[in-house]
Amino acid sequence: MWQYHPPLRDIQFVTEELLNLPAQWAQMPSFAEVDADTARQVIEEAGKFASEVIAPLNAVGDLQGCTLKDGQVTTPNGFREAYQAFVQAGWPALACDPEVGGQGLPQSVNAVLHEMLNSANHAWNMYPGLLHGAYESLLAHATPELRAQYLPKVVSGEWLSTMCLTEAHAGSDLGLLKTRAEPQADGSFRLSGTKIFISGGEHDLTDNIVHMVLARIADAPAGTKGLSLFLVPKVMPDGTRNTLRCDGLEKKMGIKGSATCVMNFEGATGWLVGEANRGLAGMFVMMNAARLHVGLQGVGHAESAYQNALAYAQERVQMRAPVREATRQNAEADSIVLHPAVRHNLLRQRALLEGGRVLAYETAHLLDLAERHPDESVRHVAHDEVSLLTPICKAFLTDNAFASAQAAQQVYGGHGYIHDHGIEQCVRDSRISRIYEGTNEIQAIDLLVRKVVADGGVKLGGLITRLQQELPATELAERVHPWLANWQQATQQLLQQCKGDPELPYRVADDYLRLAGLVLLAQGWVRAEAVAAHASSPFHTAKRETARYYLDYLLPEAGLCLARIRAGQNPLPQLHPPPP
Amino acid sequence: MWQYHPPLRDIQFVTEELLNLPAQWAQMPSFAEVDADTARQVIEEAGKFASEVIAPLNAVGDLQGCTLKDGQVTTPNGFREAYQAFVQAGWPALACDPEVGGQGLPQSVNAVLHEMLNSANHAWNMYPGLLHGAYESLLAHATPELRAQYLPKVVSGEWLSTMCLTEAHAGSDLGLLKTRAEPQADGSFRLSGTKIFISGGEHDLTDNIVHMVLARIADAPAGTKGLSLFLVPKVMPDGTRNTLRCDGLEKKMGIKGSATCVMNFEGATGWLVGEANRGLAGMFVMMNAARLHVGLQGVGHAESAYQNALAYAQERVQMRAPVREATRQNAEADSIVLHPAVRHNLLRQRALLEGGRVLAYETAHLLDLAERHPDESVRHVAHDEVSLLTPICKAFLTDNAFASAQAAQQVYGGHGYIHDHGIEQCVRDSRISRIYEGTNEIQAIDLLVRKVVADGGVKLGGLITRLQQELPATELAERVHPWLANWQQATQQLLQQCKGDPELPYRVADDYLRLAGLVLLAQGWVRAEAVAAHASSPFHTAKRETARYYLDYLLPEAGLCLARIRAGQNPLPQLHPPPP
Repeated sequence: MWQYHPPLRDIQFVTEELLNLPAQWAQMPSFAEVDADTARQVIEEAGKFASEVIAPLNAVGDLQGCTLKDGQVTTPNGFREAYQAFVQAGWPALACDPEVGGQGLPQSVNAVLHEMLNSANHAWNMYPGLLHGAYESLLAHATPELRAQYLPKVVSGEWLSTMCLTEAHAGSDLGLLKTRAEPQADGSFRLSGTKIFISGGEHDLTDNIVHMVLARIADAPAGTKGLSLFLVPKVMPDGTRNTLRCDGLEKKMGIKGSATCVMNFEGATGWLVGEANRGLAGMFVMMNAARLHVGLQGVGHAESAYQNALAYAQERVQMRAPVREATRQNAEADSIVLHPAVRHNLLRQRALLEGGRVLAYETAHLLDLAERHPDESVRHVAHDEVSLLTPICKAFLTDNAFASAQAAQQVYGGHGYIHDHGIEQCVRDSRISRIYEGTNEIQAIDLLVRKVVADGGVKLGGLITRLQQELPATELAERVHPWLANWQQATQQLLQQCKGDPELPYRVADDYLRLAGLVLLAQGWVRAEAVAAHASSPFHTAKRETARYYLDYLLPEAGLCLARIRAGQNPLPQLHPPPP
Repeated sequence: MWQYHPPLRDIQFVTEELLNLPAQWAQMPSFAEVDADTARQVIEEAGKFASEVIAPLNAVGDLQGCTLKDGQVTTPNGFREAYQAFVQAGWPALACDPEVGGQGLPQSVNAVLHEMLNSANHAWNMYPGLLHGAYESLLAHATPELRAQYLPKVVSGEWLSTMCLTEAHAGSDLGLLKTRAEPQADGSFRLSGTKIFISGGEHDLTDNIVHMVLARIADAPAGTKGLSLFLVPKVMPDGTRNTLRCDGLEKKMGIKGSATCVMNFEGATGWLVGEANRGLAGMFVMMNAARLHVGLQGVGHAESAYQNALAYAQERVQMRAPVREATRQNAEADSIVLHPAVRHNLLRQRALLEGGRVLAYETAHLLDLAERHPDESVRHVAHDEVSLLTPICKAFLTDNAFASAQAAQQVYGGHGYIHDHGIEQCVRDSRISRIYEGTNEIQAIDLLVRKVVADGGVKLGGLITRLQQELPATELAERVHPWLANWQQATQQLLQQCKGDPELPYRVADDYLRLAGLVLLAQGWVRAEAVAAHASSPFHTAKRETARYYLDYLLPEAGLCLARIRAGQNPLPQLHPPPP
């Protein structure tokens, strides 16, 4: 049945052998005390927590879901106790600033923690998964009074938080949202409106919930420039209940243990976070952290899908493999892991998973560099790269995770379609990551329109140059150099063409992001192969084989992306409804 | 909310304008009385039944599912009444032989009926969907006594039937199955064993259920050559209950209104159908019919996904489109159907859906030619083509349907993840079609190993020649000729190479099938474009635009398949478990 084993060996390969993170931390005063042993120990403990405490609640959470009665939400059995253990062990504060009670560990270590929690139980991890966003937003924008009152409990995880953005008519387009905020004489505001799809809007894990709410102050400009961000607690500082409540839970395809709430604010008291009408900027701080987090959900799902499918394929015996060892010539049937179609399926999963892990951890490390490196120019370059890589992590890694989950399901045959094996839950759960925190199509527009076209390709050129310089002098690298050049060339061409055709970048954005993701993973795999070339263990041999598999079978899709980008120069038909 | 409108206009385009089926029927005495008007009337009635009677039960079937109590299965509210109406209207007998009570309509018309039923309610259609398989098998192999006793009630639909193949340890590999059949003095057999994943193994739609069971007679050879096919009724001819029962219902990802049963046969009485130890041949008759039927499920799901996503995209207003009409320059936001990413999404769906419909209906028509054409050489060629096209229909159309369903879900954003809109059910329901009736990977092996390699590519060469000859003299056709040549050339190369490398066809089978499907749809689209070139209606304009879209954006994937087939010449790594 479904199980989760923390992939400690591969995590160590990526963090230590490939990315050499401990040496990088040593160059940053903030992380001077984090060495390889510390990080490894934290990661091992995180793996234990994920596999022993959280993973056993994954199936039960899916079966039970959440229930709403008289405005109170009950989470599945065990969720509350697991969350309390999580808080007691200090996990929420892992990457928070020591000045506000955090442990000050690097984001790259926090990324490992959240990958593992997501592997183990995506629904459960929806609750603490938003903590970091609220933390960043309060730290950067809240008044000293609000910070003093709320930040310590957010950092410790004693209070959980939400992001209240979406309304029924305003999902991708926050400019359309209508929730109102009326200023009060005491400097507070009264918020009124209905928010939907609020993860953890109500639950029984913590006594208070800190809602971060986007709303419009009376007479604010229309659109996104009239949005302000508010902190609206479930329980007021004096212990009374604020006038907000959960009026419904969504019946969802997956992550059923996560309470997705309809939240009604009925003159609820809140306080402005940051400047009036600058709420979107405050929210974007949260959303960027959240988007990398969603990319890590992709890695997490891809990991649990792969390891379960591999175990099943080794155990399940069906049909004779077309080529068999001499000793098995008379066996009735073989383990299906010997059948070429199953090997392709699993190798594709592995290549996307392990390659995706490199990209995600490297982006988390760039976040550390952007925030903590003593050299301003390093911080600046890292910041630029994070802005490019975040939408790629979010979209590419979650697209791949869903593809891998349903590929893993295919390995199980009919057994994959029933609940018992857990893999169909993985398919359902992983599906949401492609939608929320900005659909993957919106990530693609963010990358191409807002990041690449907006600065004439300057930041992207810098990234590609760095990627070229990092390529080792190997045979495999020779196959990736042309793809980095193709990416750069396609970008230059688009920059020229879109001057006379403003719709063009929108027509090709999805294929552009996929091209970028495929080439990035290729670059990572070539580096991994070079590192693995120095060792002959089965682990390193598999690394080299998988690198080659990626280049042979997965990288060629980049050519398809280029062909589609070229086709995108032509107008795209409008859709007409079929005649009745 | 989720709705189904029968796509009568496109069905008419494919059956009449493109495939010219009425003229083809006129050449077959069996269908001499079926003219365009008759077929159109039947199809319209079928559409009414699907949309008015079956579609309204789709969501409720998903919510309620089936329940088992004391061996009795209760289907969701309305399923039984709908089935009775289905029988009363004579739908089960549509394509059955008039000599045994059928209406003798072509398979191509029956295909339309089942596409529509599957669009409307896949779970409900699981019950009558297996009728045709049992019908074919009894007609071809049963003794006159058995035929007389069972065939009329199977044809009328008064009794539903099952295919009892799978056992827990024997799914794809039927050779491993263990259910035993003990011969009795009266010529009957006593069957004992446990079958799983039996669709409609028990239900409340009909008073009797005719189980077609694969089992092993004592002392039969091991493997598939020791399997025999039996008819085992739920209720004996004397009205007593046979000793078989449903001991469990699977909790599944989707098609929850379909009862998927664990069936225990405890010395149940059955009668041999066909020769002893030749059961697999009898079962394959059923399975081939079933495989085309599953391909039609793909078309059905793709249709309902597309039409619902299109309607939602037209209605939903979010963000400004990058290019807007002058009159809308001040509008707050646009219908999302104007956004390029959504147009790509929907055009891709439409291109795969309408192209897939051509392939499915043409295959159904070839089945008619193979069975009913007066000229033996026509029957022979058609039979060969059906054998090649059936696995392609099954795998390619269901892969595309699942891809389309989850693409449609993406159009809905967050609203696509919740139950209310019905699209997440479509994703869950459509997923099974890639697994059952032989996984899509097994279809690929069937195509390349058992059909193409087995006869040295002779049948395939014939098919490709026919496809080339049918291409019109148009600009688009010039773009497809090279792909037919590429397909043929890749085949010849594989035939050469696999002589010294018996694993090779297994390594490339999935990409080979996908290549075949992509080129087949391209050929169909080029013909459709040529037909549509003669008319200027919005419908025909959209056809031409979609044909071009297919060639620009979807056909290039064939190049990726070729690249992977080339890569497949190299050995494929074996999977090792990661070190602990």
